[in-house]
Amino acid sequence: MAAKYVYFFGNGKAEGKAELKNLLGGKGANLAEMTSIGLPVPAGFTITTEVCTEFYKNNQNYPQGLKAEVEANLKQVEELMGKRFGDPKNPLLVSVRSGARASMPGMMDTILNLGLNDTTVQGVIAQSGDERFAYDAYRRFVQMYSDVVMGMSKEILEHLLEGKKEERGVHLDTELTAVDWKELVGKFKAKIKETLGQAFPEDPQEQLWGAIGAVFGSWMNQRAITYRKLNNIPADWGTAVNVQSMVFGNMGNDCATGVAFTRDPSTGEDYFYGEYLVNAQGEDVVAGIRTPQPINKAKKKDGDLPAMEDVLPECYAQLAKIRGILEKHYKDMQDIEFTIEKGKLYMLQTRNGKRTAPAAIKIAVDMVREGLIDEKAAVLRVAPNQLDQLLHPSLDPKAAKKVIAKGLPASPGAVCGEVVFTADEAEAAAKTGHKVILVRVETSPEDIHGMHAAQGILTARGGMTSHAAVVARGMGKCCVAGCGDIKVDYKAEQFVAKDGTVVKKGDRITLDGSNGEVMLGEVPTVAPQMTGDFRTLMVWVDKFRRLKVRTNADTPQDSKVAREFGAEGIGLCRTEHMFFEADRIAAVREMILAEDIEGRKKALTKILPMQKSDFIGIFREMKGLPVTIRLLDPPLHEFLPHEEKDIESLATTMGVTVQTLKHKVEFLHEFNPMLGHRGCRLGLTFPEIYDMQVQAIMEAACELNKNEGFSIIPEIMIPLVAVVKELKTLKDNAIRVCDEVIGRYGVKVEYLIGTMIELPRAALTADELATEAEFFSFGTNDLTQTTFGLSRDDAGKFLPFYVENGLLEEDPFVTLDQSGVGQLVRMGCEKGRATRPNIKLGICGEHGGDPASVIFCHKVGLDYVSCSPFRVPIARLAAAHAALEEKK
Amino acid sequence: MAAKYVYFFGNGKAEGKAELKNLLGGKGANLAEMTSIGLPVPAGFTITTEVCTEFYKNNQNYPQGLKAEVEANLKQVEELMGKRFGDPKNPLLVSVRSGARASMPGMMDTILNLGLNDTTVQGVIAQSGDERFAYDAYRRFVQMYSDVVMGMSKEILEHLLEGKKEERGVHLDTELTAVDWKELVGKFKAKIKETLGQAFPEDPQEQLWGAIGAVFGSWMNQRAITYRKLNNIPADWGTAVNVQSMVFGNMGNDCATGVAFTRDPSTGEDYFYGEYLVNAQGEDVVAGIRTPQPINKAKKKDGDLPAMEDVLPECYAQLAKIRGILEKHYKDMQDIEFTIEKGKLYMLQTRNGKRTAPAAIKIAVDMVREGLIDEKAAVLRVAPNQLDQLLHPSLDPKAAKKVIAKGLPASPGAVCGEVVFTADEAEAAAKTGHKVILVRVETSPEDIHGMHAAQGILTARGGMTSHAAVVARGMGKCCVAGCGDIKVDYKAEQFVAKDGTVVKKGDRITLDGSNGEVMLGEVPTVAPQMTGDFRTLMVWVDKFRRLKVRTNADTPQDSKVAREFGAEGIGLCRTEHMFFEADRIAAVREMILAEDIEGRKKALTKILPMQKSDFIGIFREMKGLPVTIRLLDPPLHEFLPHEEKDIESLATTMGVTVQTLKHKVEFLHEFNPMLGHRGCRLGLTFPEIYDMQVQAIMEAACELNKNEGFSIIPEIMIPLVAVVKELKTLKDNAIRVCDEVIGRYGVKVEYLIGTMIELPRAALTADELATEAEFFSFGTNDLTQTTFGLSRDDAGKFLPFYVENGLLEEDPFVTLDQSGVGQLVRMGCEKGRATRPNIKLGICGEHGGDPASVIFCHKVGLDYVSCSPFRVPIARLAAAHAALEEKK
Repeated sequence: MAAKYVYFFGNGKAEGKAELKNLLGGKGANLAEMTSIGLPVPAGFTITTEVCTEFYKNNQNYPQGLKAEVEANLKQVEELMGKRFGDPKNPLLVSVRSGARASMPGMMDTILNLGLNDTTVQGVIAQSGDERFAYDAYRRFVQMYSDVVMGMSKEILEHLLEGKKEERGVHLDTELTAVDWKELVGKFKAKIKETLGQAFPEDPQEQLWGAIGAVFGSWMNQRAITYRKLNNIPADWGTAVNVQSMVFGNMGNDCATGVAFTRDPSTGEDYFYGEYLVNAQGEDVVAGIRTPQPINKAKKKDGDLPAMEDVLPECYAQLAKIRGILEKHYKDMQDIEFTIEKGKLYMLQTRNGKRTAPAAIKIAVDMVREGLIDEKAAVLRVAPNQLDQLLHPSLDPKAAKKVIAKGLPASPGAVCGEVVFTADEAEAAAKTGHKVILVRVETSPEDIHGMHAAQGILTARGGMTSHAAVVARGMGKCCVAGCGDIKVDYKAEQFVAKDGTVVKKGDRITLDGSNGEVMLGEVPTVAPQMTGDFRTLMVWVDKFRRLKVRTNADTPQDSKVAREFGAEGIGLCRTEHMFFEADRIAAVREMILAEDIEGRKKALTKILPMQKSDFIGIFREMKGLPVTIRLLDPPLHEFLPHEEKDIESLATTMGVTVQTLKHKVEFLHEFNPMLGHRGCRLGLTFPEIYDMQVQAIMEAACELNKNEGFSIIPEIMIPLVAVVKELKTLKDNAIRVCDEVIGRYGVKVEYLIGTMIELPRAALTADELATEAEFFSFGTNDLTQTTFGLSRDDAGKFLPFYVENGLLEEDPFVTLDQSGVGQLVRMGCEKGRATRPNIKLGICGEHGGDPASVIFCHKVGLDYVSCSPFRVPIARLAAAHAALEEKK
Repeated sequence: MAAKYVYFFGNGKAEGKAELKNLLGGKGANLAEMTSIGLPVPAGFTITTEVCTEFYKNNQNYPQGLKAEVEANLKQVEELMGKRFGDPKNPLLVSVRSGARASMPGMMDTILNLGLNDTTVQGVIAQSGDERFAYDAYRRFVQMYSDVVMGMSKEILEHLLEGKKEERGVHLDTELTAVDWKELVGKFKAKIKETLGQAFPEDPQEQLWGAIGAVFGSWMNQRAITYRKLNNIPADWGTAVNVQSMVFGNMGNDCATGVAFTRDPSTGEDYFYGEYLVNAQGEDVVAGIRTPQPINKAKKKDGDLPAMEDVLPECYAQLAKIRGILEKHYKDMQDIEFTIEKGKLYMLQTRNGKRTAPAAIKIAVDMVREGLIDEKAAVLRVAPNQLDQLLHPSLDPKAAKKVIAKGLPASPGAVCGEVVFTADEAEAAAKTGHKVILVRVETSPEDIHGMHAAQGILTARGGMTSHAAVVARGMGKCCVAGCGDIKVDYKAEQFVAKDGTVVKKGDRITLDGSNGEVMLGEVPTVAPQMTGDFRTLMVWVDKFRRLKVRTNADTPQDSKVAREFGAEGIGLCRTEHMFFEADRIAAVREMILAEDIEGRKKALTKILPMQKSDFIGIFREMKGLPVTIRLLDPPLHEFLPHEEKDIESLATTMGVTVQTLKHKVEFLHEFNPMLGHRGCRLGLTFPEIYDMQVQAIMEAACELNKNEGFSIIPEIMIPLVAVVKELKTLKDNAIRVCDEVIGRYGVKVEYLIGTMIELPRAALTADELATEAEFFSFGTNDLTQTTFGLSRDDAGKFLPFYVENGLLEEDPFVTLDQSGVGQLVRMGCEKGRATRPNIKLGICGEHGGDPASVIFCHKVGLDYVSCSPFRVPIARLAAAHAALEEKK
């Protein structure tokens, strides 16, 4: 049986359905679904994603039989609409749009009004009775088609259009007449022929196949490839093509076009949120060129143009009813597009709406309350990575701030950065570690890479559903859009705010994406506040997950924050950060400069009480939860200055000669410190350092257990172990010190001694290490560095190139490389458990807070993940997803 | 049944035999064997190595039953000798010696003349009729026993002895009388009591058990531990204890003691080589205090004292006969010890003699000719590592040299270094990269670590069988011994040669271990000459091995040397060394400083013809054998200077500002260059570099194949691959360039493209890499660095500590870490072959020349190993050993 390549929809009947999203793309599947449930959808058909895949597999040729199927479906549309494609009297016009499995806003090309030519335009004039509309539609088609299908630079025709406006002495497109448009169509076509050496196609069939080819072609354009890369969409998914009969929102003042969300995508509020434009075509709303009007009165603000609820009350009532039908049907918040043609409402699209993290949480929790979904579905409805925005700091309400402008709160968050005016600058600056705010009049798909690189985005034009707003929300990035208060001057590399403030490239500004404020300079931020809905959701999350979530914390303060975020212990407490504290760095340096063990011991004696008080503080905050403390890890030279000036200054402070200090610095210099004299190698060559640390840990535990009734079980972790004898020697030393302290305090304190698995050799010989280690913590940062032979500090020169060029799917320092590093983690788990079945297994690399990596950790059977305090909720949610997905 | 702890030998009958070496130690087993085959051996018994092992397992307690067995065996000895232990009239005196499974010369403690006390000494006087001899034996016993068993510092009694000589106005021990010795015995005992607070034991039983305990105790002394570590002898082998009735070489001029080798241990010549001393005890020969006399006339030199052949002709004849018996019996060259007591010959030891590499080869080849052993046995008789000395350079015979002294040619080789006078200095200097010559009056076991660290050893005293000579030969280290031409002054840190030359600490001298010459300054060396025996042996070697041996060579010269050593191809040709050549470094730097791809290409165009001529030279030398060329590997900053001064000078040369050059150097700086922007990462970000190199390789191959009739198949190797897409991209690029060149020359040239496996991730994903790679070469240097997380450049601060303290058995950069890195190599082979069954597999890390690692490579089924030219014969021999051992 031949494959079916085309699926029809129209007049209440559809061959497709929502479940066929993989085959029909999101847009096509939902057009079919909406048709089936009786919503008013202009008739059309969908060419499947399989055709796209075959097209690329087959050297860009269409599969056999496609042509006939398209013809048959087009005939059906003609019959339903009572129009004929190419008919001079009553022509059918169609739109041709892409529609991939996953929504890719603004990424793919669209062609409207297809079927127009010098003959059929007469039919449109006859049918609509509006010559200006007809020629406006015609010139739009010529502009779009020449750009998207024929590959002609947009600016050339725009230039002709501007010339016409100048000639006519007008400023706006709407001021041009039918005659102007007609003339322009002629000029456009002549210019196209002149520029490209080929005529604009008059034959509607040729137009149609040109457009279908262009949609498939756009699947492989640079913007689409970039978007897929950023969003992990496989190239072989392909896109569908939707051919649909046109309806027009720009045939007069009883026409309109709009987009809406069934709930507020920014806050999640159960409120019909949308924007529309009277007498406009769809792309006018999305492109952000005209600032649109609200659809209803409820949130209308002073100065807003009239709401659709007032202007087109019947259509609004019908749309509001459809909103309810869609939410009940899809059981999720929908993002819809509609057009009103001469007072009749048409639905052009519905899809699950993108939303901010607070909105995602509120909608999920509300929908459970409303009985639409259950708790599991609610948990799965919130993407773990999305929580990141929620957990970012917001502006300190008590801080002084100079607001220079206000725009739309398009995507929440509070960020500060240096102003740049192009996407390329944003990317370049970010690569050198600068935090930047991308300021644009408006953004377009060409700006994606700059938006990705920037901390936040500020646009002068465009609404809440403009390109900038939608993409920023998708990225979880702060965005203030449609900020008419600023005038951007690209040439002068500056913008001027309404109050006269001039902000030049490189100046720092702060954006508040939650209220749309733009502030001069850097405004302090505060830790995020957790909402009630968030807490409700997290209670469900904790019901479903198996994996425990700990935190990486080095101070009582970090420990406290992490506890509030739900951390169930500390997976990594790095003691070296304590060494850097101002009150002890002098003693640390004294220890390093000591000539012999006695000198070192003397200095360590000074550090001991300070380390002990650190541990007391941390243990107290963690209230008996497990705390894994890593003994000193970095090479000693990290504690000494390296610049001539600093060495001189320190020499004076320390009372040694500059020469002595310099010699020490030189002696300690390493070519590859990452692979040098650090970790347990220090503990073995200078056992007195680890002895002091173990003593501090155990004295802290003994005192709290004895005097404050805690039952703390410290987990002492030995870093950078490569061979079991290192671990055995240091474990024996630690046990000796522990037992001495326990004996001295006369309390019974249990403790565990384990190791990091952060070198390939440790994973390879985990069976041997487990003879000594009571727990393993996978240090996947260093394990990634050594497995790849890749220094994180130096990778900046080529790793971005790797990710951009698909040499690596992901930055392996962000998402665990499952096929390489993951093999070692799996091996470490299996070998460790083979030797010691009850060995505790965890991960403390930064991957512990990355959702994809957390899911991997669940699968390989770790007991816990550990991550930075602010990522604890993300890890909890990812762990719940892992458990729920597993059950499916 | 209770274990048997003691084995008797005496009067032609023995309970042990040579095969029981593990149980009885080498010395004990061979004493038993010699007894059985009818050689004159003083009666005695051996306490087994199992007793030693149990002694240490059991908290230093002897197993039950040992005491009774020792008593019974002692009784048997008494009966055979007709003397009684402790008998005042006719006392039995015994020696107590250690004897481990492997020979450990000078490492273990020995006690002679045990059984003497104030009563029994009278019996010895009565029996020997020589009071002076008796008291001399007595005082020797007291000295040895107090040192070895009681732990008293030797110097204290030596001091008393010196005092006595002064008092008596004499210089030599031999000038002291019976009365003097008697008095000294008394003083010694008083001093021992005073110093240690305990009396010297009078009871012979107490003496015996004290001595047995001391031998077992010496198994764990520092010297023994160090020796075991250097020679990979497990601690749990234990030592046996040999208790044997004393015979005396110092009872008059019809007495003597000596050591001999059945063939010359230095050259392998079939000639009875030995030294003896008249009227001396055994340790006098070995300790090197008196310079001994030759045993026969054949090699007697002017100035030598009379040969034993002349002085004791009957004993010599008997000994010469025994030499033949032993060689036929053991089928190997023997190292023997003998004593002549009043004209009667006794054999005290035989063992396989240590020998130099040339001697090992000559003896093995001669013994095949003599029909004693077969070719396989001959191949196994030569230790691969031993060849190293043979393959070291010797002095250039045409070079001018200033010979300042001449000593004994104790261990061959030619070395140059800075003079140091203590073992500690030698070790310290070697650690900082200095090459040193250790100069001592004589060496003792305490000097082992310094001998190990030095390039060569020069001693003023001692013969060819002195401590220095034996140990140096074992280590394969150049040694000139017994050089009476120099006067060493430790205090002034200098020595004065006979010609008056003063050589101070830090001055450079050259030693020639083949003729005993000591030269001032550095004398140039030449590549070693291969002897006919060597060639004969290597023909046999090549018959038995399966593994191919290639070489690492970067120049035509290296390639030529390697071919002469039998290399079967080049396994690693590093192109970066070519970049450093004076005539091209300027162009390389120009390329690095270029602002854009055009500038880089321009500079590369200059390098292309030079690289091409390099490859032509190498291909010509290799005459069509496979050549694996690694594309550029090191980070670009390695080609730029880093010191302020050098940057300034280069800036002038390059015609750029200092600032520009500094910026470039700073921009290229890396924190961990080992893990940085190098290898294929360069090839991907600067594809024009690899394109140029591939072009140079292929043009060279095309020209030679076309014009000179070669059939060269270049193997292009892409370094530092971590993910398959790197390899795929670079392979596609290389194929494009290759095909372009081949097309241009119009010749058919095959080529292979493969990769190094030098990162853990490459080994872990070798199945994926093999989809692209036509060969793998395991780069075990970098693989060891990344698997251990250990920078070779920085490990100097702790790796020696690791090896010394047994944290690592071996330096993993010398011998492949089989349990860690080896797992990855094995995995890489298995996964690679699973994807591509005929994939070529080799190794090009320095482990390719290490015998233990070569055997591992054979076992995992590699096709070849590649090593430095001078190690090619070592690798060939090791490969043959691997194949022969496998068949066993």
